[in-house]
Amino acid sequence: MPEMLASYIAGAWYTAPDEGTVVNDAATGEPVARVSSTGLDTQALVDHARSVGGPALRGMTFQARGAALKALATYLDANKVAYHELSLATGATRRDGAGDIDGGIGTLFAYSSRAKRELPDGYVLVDGDVESLGKEGTFAGRHVYTSLPGVVLQINAFNFPVWGMLEKLAPTVLAGVPTIVKPAGQTAYLTALVVRDIIASGALPEGALQLVCGGVGDLLDRLGGEDMIAFTGSASTAATLRGDDAVTARAARFNAETDSLNCSILGPDAVAGTQEFDLFVKEVGREITTKAGQRCTCIRRALVPEPAVDDVLSGLRGRLDRVVVGNPRSESVTMGSLVSLRQRDEVRDAVNALARAADVVYGDPMSVAPVDADPQRGAFMAPVVLLCDDVDRAEPHEVEAFGPVTTIIPYSEARDVGQIAARGGGSLVGSIVSYDPDFVRDVVLDAAPYHGRLLVLDRDCAGESTGHGSAIPQMVHGGPGRAGGGEELGGMRAVRHYMQRTGLQGSPAVIAALTGDS
Amino acid sequence: MPEMLASYIAGAWYTAPDEGTVVNDAATGEPVARVSSTGLDTQALVDHARSVGGPALRGMTFQARGAALKALATYLDANKVAYHELSLATGATRRDGAGDIDGGIGTLFAYSSRAKRELPDGYVLVDGDVESLGKEGTFAGRHVYTSLPGVVLQINAFNFPVWGMLEKLAPTVLAGVPTIVKPAGQTAYLTALVVRDIIASGALPEGALQLVCGGVGDLLDRLGGEDMIAFTGSASTAATLRGDDAVTARAARFNAETDSLNCSILGPDAVAGTQEFDLFVKEVGREITTKAGQRCTCIRRALVPEPAVDDVLSGLRGRLDRVVVGNPRSESVTMGSLVSLRQRDEVRDAVNALARAADVVYGDPMSVAPVDADPQRGAFMAPVVLLCDDVDRAEPHEVEAFGPVTTIIPYSEARDVGQIAARGGGSLVGSIVSYDPDFVRDVVLDAAPYHGRLLVLDRDCAGESTGHGSAIPQMVHGGPGRAGGGEELGGMRAVRHYMQRTGLQGSPAVIAALTGDS
Repeated sequence: MPEMLASYIAGAWYTAPDEGTVVNDAATGEPVARVSSTGLDTQALVDHARSVGGPALRGMTFQARGAALKALATYLDANKVAYHELSLATGATRRDGAGDIDGGIGTLFAYSSRAKRELPDGYVLVDGDVESLGKEGTFAGRHVYTSLPGVVLQINAFNFPVWGMLEKLAPTVLAGVPTIVKPAGQTAYLTALVVRDIIASGALPEGALQLVCGGVGDLLDRLGGEDMIAFTGSASTAATLRGDDAVTARAARFNAETDSLNCSILGPDAVAGTQEFDLFVKEVGREITTKAGQRCTCIRRALVPEPAVDDVLSGLRGRLDRVVVGNPRSESVTMGSLVSLRQRDEVRDAVNALARAADVVYGDPMSVAPVDADPQRGAFMAPVVLLCDDVDRAEPHEVEAFGPVTTIIPYSEARDVGQIAARGGGSLVGSIVSYDPDFVRDVVLDAAPYHGRLLVLDRDCAGESTGHGSAIPQMVHGGPGRAGGGEELGGMRAVRHYMQRTGLQGSPAVIAALTGDS
Repeated sequence: MPEMLASYIAGAWYTAPDEGTVVNDAATGEPVARVSSTGLDTQALVDHARSVGGPALRGMTFQARGAALKALATYLDANKVAYHELSLATGATRRDGAGDIDGGIGTLFAYSSRAKRELPDGYVLVDGDVESLGKEGTFAGRHVYTSLPGVVLQINAFNFPVWGMLEKLAPTVLAGVPTIVKPAGQTAYLTALVVRDIIASGALPEGALQLVCGGVGDLLDRLGGEDMIAFTGSASTAATLRGDDAVTARAARFNAETDSLNCSILGPDAVAGTQEFDLFVKEVGREITTKAGQRCTCIRRALVPEPAVDDVLSGLRGRLDRVVVGNPRSESVTMGSLVSLRQRDEVRDAVNALARAADVVYGDPMSVAPVDADPQRGAFMAPVVLLCDDVDRAEPHEVEAFGPVTTIIPYSEARDVGQIAARGGGSLVGSIVSYDPDFVRDVVLDAAPYHGRLLVLDRDCAGESTGHGSAIPQMVHGGPGRAGGGEELGGMRAVRHYMQRTGLQGSPAVIAALTGDS
């Protein structure tokens, strides 16, 4: 039997006594680790965070917390070879692993740099100016942010075992709030390896980070208004968590980032032969093959002007024919596997559901010949493109195949495209690929309230564009409705999500003394 | 039978065909109105808001929306005599009514003034600076806020039938989002009267405001990620609403402002004879008698240094002995009734629960001799003060008597008082009455994360202080945990609560074109 993953609780490593669940290599099917949290002392977890980790973090200034993040990032960067090796077991290629591992470490660096420039060497953030609240000038008000006195519980998705933890940890540390991280079982071994190094680094004070491998047991029963639950994963799990008494009755803060039916929109101007046409085909192709389409930001709906559909499909065929699916340990492979056989089966089911409303025009969801791997033991799947000609069908806007799958949806009127995008019910990200400023403006204004991020991709920015699917530290990541209704990242905006805003009122002298301004 | 209150739906007044529920005058017991929403067409409500009210509001610039608020405020101000007369039926004195009616209209004026100064003459708010996202300067990002495309459902409490609607309506109109208001049944007649005038004023476009008198039926089933539910009321109703599929599964935004166990803290320096001592006694006395203690911000816990307890109690006796309870239509009356006999009975029950852990040291919860009123028919109650000597008891921190009731809680160590305040589990507001800057600083830093607002009251600001209990447009109103975990008001912060933040990415020229900057 493979090794049982240990949890890190109240300053010690805890290994469950039972057999737990075996997690297999996504590409080979070989056992990698076992996962169980049987016997987990959730009270000790929460007490330790509140009484040790929280006070230690809150005792550091923002500048000291930022310096700690930098030290942590430097340490992890020096140890990352091991993460990259282990990442291959998740089915990710080395390139995919870079997005997760180097992307995660880079997020720590980015937050430490911004903290140095943007945060004070103190404990309280001011928000807005002093408000004069009386004609004589003797009564004033100002808003401040202070650290939440509780704990942040991260419940993460399988697809970013490193970045998913670090992108939440960076702003949480800056906010002065301790974290309990609960990785998804399928890839918890990689998170656990990184947590082991974080603890070994000594960069964060004891209690700032704890780890639960396996289920969280009754942990939610111990959370309330001082605490926050930061979730990434499926919409159905988000609904369950959000319905827990911790949130509904005790008003624990809740943030959800759920995968959504993100779209990319090709402008009517961007006909075959234009640079934007080529950018669109490249972007869609890259999105559905990166991490085998297992990104919550992946392009699930390609909205294409009717006259351009054949050209787009032809372009995609050309790109996707060159994709080599297989064991990510093989040099020639450009697309790895899904995370598990179960996940592959779910994606196949979703493709079948989509196929009720659309035609599979590229790829075979049921068949693949992976390089250097057994298609029965590894969770492989070939890229699949569907075409939905019936604008009235709901499936392309509601059924998510969380794999290398996208649906082309033709549109006839440019003025309708914003509303077609909105039929996704809220998305993390959308992109508009066009060089027509009027089209871009109309679509952005229509689509913005349904999106957390919108990329306008054209010849001018393509060289430096970070791409449709990449969540970057500077921009908010999250979206309304189907995307969970939450928000992460966005520079120092994320730090404030883990703090309480309070309006202080008093004499101008008192307000100045409390907020550090004269 | 009294008149049935009409609802305003899809541009027409709707009167339920059944008998409904009779609402009585709080002081006299006479019938005032009937309430029912039987036969309510909730689909028509939502469709009208989304397809008529929303587009009309979004078609106005922020400046035009601000001007509409001003026109509305001016109209209501000219018609307010009728509101003040009807307000007496709620048990409120004329002074109480001013807080509700003039306070509500003043909030409209305040938001219109701020909009004129602080909002652009456009449709999109920018958030933060342009972010350079590439070394060559060809890729950039900026965040914008756009109007939620759905509807805001206000579910309001009985205690502020006018202000409670208008303080939510002002930022919602500025945000460009239509509203459905559902007042509490007990005082819905006053809200309905004001809504009738709002519609008659023509200040807002049709569909910007609709009214439901009575239950909301299946309205929540029609709300999702485009929409927002803005609730004020009890913690238990907040929990029910927050657990609805509209919120948990469809990610409708949810904001709760629930009454909480707010505290006022007397500093050890503020011994009898100091100005701060007198200010504290006056503030506590005023808080528990204003609106007969039916404000969600009322001081429920008076934290007093042990040596000062007798003096505080003596001071409170002196003030409360002068209170004249009775029919608010009588000139001599300084404190009216609770909103209903049922509410009075609930407050009595709560006092009995508190009395298990504390002694009633002033007043008799079961007996009152109201001026010009029948104590059997009007919901009267005398002011009650309890004293809890046992610091380990939970009741004073958990049981809320939503009436003219407060509990004095002695404390011995100044360093503990922040944590005693925190035992309320999150409050809308706390106040610190002290002239000792070190004490103030320590308590504010400890207490801030548990409060949405903190007032530091002393001799320097007392002349212009708006008081512990007053939510004002400039400062946020809301609080963590027990207080609901939400936020309202706070100037233009509230406008953003009804908008979607989106990170735009593209070439600098595209970003500038979309955000109006060069």
